[in-house]
Amino acid sequence: MKPVRIGLLGCGTVGTGVVKLLRGNAAMLERRLGAPIEIAAVADLILKPNPSLGLTAKLITKDGAAVVERPDIDIIVELFGGHEPARTFILKALASGKDVVTANKAMLAVHCEEIFRAAEKAGRTVGFEASVGGGIPIIRTLREALAGDRQRAVYGIVNGTCNYILTRMSEQGQEFAEVLAEAQRSGLAEANPALDIDGHDAAHKLCLLVALAFGVTIKPAQVHTEGISAITQHDIAYARELGFTIKLLAIAKEENGVIEARVHPTMIPRNHLLAGVGDAFNAIYIQGEALGSTMYYGKGAGQMPTATAVVADILDIARHRIAAGGGARSYPLGFPMAQIKRARVKPMDDVVCEYYLRFMAPDKPGVLGAIASVLGRNRISIASVIQQERNAEVTVPVVMRTHEARERDLKRALAQIRRFRIMKQSPVFIRIEERL
Amino acid sequence: MKPVRIGLLGCGTVGTGVVKLLRGNAAMLERRLGAPIEIAAVADLILKPNPSLGLTAKLITKDGAAVVERPDIDIIVELFGGHEPARTFILKALASGKDVVTANKAMLAVHCEEIFRAAEKAGRTVGFEASVGGGIPIIRTLREALAGDRQRAVYGIVNGTCNYILTRMSEQGQEFAEVLAEAQRSGLAEANPALDIDGHDAAHKLCLLVALAFGVTIKPAQVHTEGISAITQHDIAYARELGFTIKLLAIAKEENGVIEARVHPTMIPRNHLLAGVGDAFNAIYIQGEALGSTMYYGKGAGQMPTATAVVADILDIARHRIAAGGGARSYPLGFPMAQIKRARVKPMDDVVCEYYLRFMAPDKPGVLGAIASVLGRNRISIASVIQQERNAEVTVPVVMRTHEARERDLKRALAQIRRFRIMKQSPVFIRIEERL
Repeated sequence: MKPVRIGLLGCGTVGTGVVKLLRGNAAMLERRLGAPIEIAAVADLILKPNPSLGLTAKLITKDGAAVVERPDIDIIVELFGGHEPARTFILKALASGKDVVTANKAMLAVHCEEIFRAAEKAGRTVGFEASVGGGIPIIRTLREALAGDRQRAVYGIVNGTCNYILTRMSEQGQEFAEVLAEAQRSGLAEANPALDIDGHDAAHKLCLLVALAFGVTIKPAQVHTEGISAITQHDIAYARELGFTIKLLAIAKEENGVIEARVHPTMIPRNHLLAGVGDAFNAIYIQGEALGSTMYYGKGAGQMPTATAVVADILDIARHRIAAGGGARSYPLGFPMAQIKRARVKPMDDVVCEYYLRFMAPDKPGVLGAIASVLGRNRISIASVIQQERNAEVTVPVVMRTHEARERDLKRALAQIRRFRIMKQSPVFIRIEERL
Repeated sequence: MKPVRIGLLGCGTVGTGVVKLLRGNAAMLERRLGAPIEIAAVADLILKPNPSLGLTAKLITKDGAAVVERPDIDIIVELFGGHEPARTFILKALASGKDVVTANKAMLAVHCEEIFRAAEKAGRTVGFEASVGGGIPIIRTLREALAGDRQRAVYGIVNGTCNYILTRMSEQGQEFAEVLAEAQRSGLAEANPALDIDGHDAAHKLCLLVALAFGVTIKPAQVHTEGISAITQHDIAYARELGFTIKLLAIAKEENGVIEARVHPTMIPRNHLLAGVGDAFNAIYIQGEALGSTMYYGKGAGQMPTATAVVADILDIARHRIAAGGGARSYPLGFPMAQIKRARVKPMDDVVCEYYLRFMAPDKPGVLGAIASVLGRNRISIASVIQQERNAEVTVPVVMRTHEARERDLKRALAQIRRFRIMKQSPVFIRIEERL
């Protein structure tokens, strides 16, 4: 049977993984599909020919625009990353009758409506399994397997760098800067790690998860986003004492048509399955109305795990291209785009959480009382207090756990407490999710 | 748009859940599909009309054969369970141009080749997501998401009853019979629990997992199957001391084209993610060549969780039926049936494992030596020994952990040791999977 022909835009780490997988598993893929998958062109500015992978000089070009226009190509696999030219090339590919596979969460988080509408108009589809959770099949799970149910909440460990750093900090007692430097040396963190450690990468992924889980779109700017750089050994130790583990979670909930979406360090019960997700692994924990809780766990990044997601999308699309009539492609978000609305997003100030609070103050009589009364005046009630060390000479941590409180009230209370002359540093707060 | 019409065979617990879900989420399902899903007939011998669920007397019939033949029905949902008439009805439905959704693992484990071939011949498909892992989307994950990779091993906690019993035994120190009786009273175990506790239900599911993961078929009789009824508090306590938890695992591995498939109580490291899967929850842990380890966790049974899997299959099939040309249905096993071969199965005697061994003998000098030398003569080397109590008057447990040994050698050694006059009861052995 006529081969299905792929145009690859970008052949770095993941692209090379895709080439390896298509080549190494060619016979099995052809058994599944009934036709071979062939790489027709690779657009990359710096790639050198690599005959052992079948990447001959003839296949390689610097001209991505030309690859996108080629009539002999069926599927464009976009692995450039970044907004442009990725977005333009994808739109052109769709307009010229190609299907698209991409791992580009940063671009999709902002432009997915435009791109998925263009796909629908062209009668094509966009596979983006690799964009969230690497090799974990969370996109098709939300789009298809959970499509008969209503989702209530999504909790994701979706940034491997942050999870690796927090796992090391928790297991080996090192401080953030130290572990980050180590992760950078070993290649687990980027030279410029801001996108990961500030939570933006997780926020991009959360936008896609929200669209799939709830059928509404939000923009990254609508996701309240905090990173992990302020987490200290103090907080990790107190978390443990309170029975919690600290994870960077991407959280989305839906209630009465309003979406809550936030990314921040979160204390979760130490015996929860998500707390056992260590190192650079990812996991997405979903609560559905009928299904209850499910969890999906695996490698969220890396050459070969991400490549398996890209190849699964290629296979899926190839199957439809081969079929008589082309058949029923999946809608990228599981709904026709006409059914997808902009989300109504709950302002962060209205979010209700339990909180862990840490105040650094001299251990003098009255300090605890002063803090407690400001909290009380702001309708925040204290569930428990830890104040172990007794030494009036030095600054000691006063640690509290609150009952559920509104973010607006907490912020106001902390602003008032921060003004106490006795406070040696800004109060620290970490949100708790206990009933997930 | 014209509705997609469903014929339901069997409307017990899961069937009623399917009706609830189709009704409760009708608007959302229609937004996804662009057409309503309609229940056209329900075949059930004892079902009473239930107008609040839309189950009018007109819909209900005792005549399953007539439902299968009706030309106005698009999809048959088989929830009778058991081999017949389920098998015959499914074959007839396919032959008459209907697609089929079923949760019937016991029947599929034996007849899936016949049924999937019939589907292919008829140009139809069979959805069976609900047959393994309830609401966990493990079928489509193996068939589609992991389709670009080669699987190496599958480890499944796929029987909720057994996992519930082992969790209770482990957490509350009760013996097997006591927890089973309790589970029967609360409806978590059947009045006749043999199918579950003897491991046969897990073996049925393993047959389907093997076909999906490795593209070869095996019969339930080829799965070495042991249940959990021999597990005692002795073994649970020693497992803990050795750093393990005991789970009933369905295990399949592929090496050089040979399949190893077995269901038995297994000691796994206490800090492994699978060990944290408690109560009646299920999880499937998969090792892929390129992807590495992934895990899928959720409710493996129950009315609504199982119904979500059935409805996801209905939605998938409905999408294809509506599409112009019908399009590319998935092959049930991810390969055309011509590509699916019978597995070459490794005899259990050739399986290599580490073992936990427990001998009950009087604590006299020479006992340990006698046991050790029989093991040694059979090429089994001891990794560690626990022998805490010192009391020559009474029978005490001698517990050992072995290095990797061949099952045949172990069985021979234990047969020899069993003949020692000093042995008070048959030696107990439990297989260990440490590197999963």
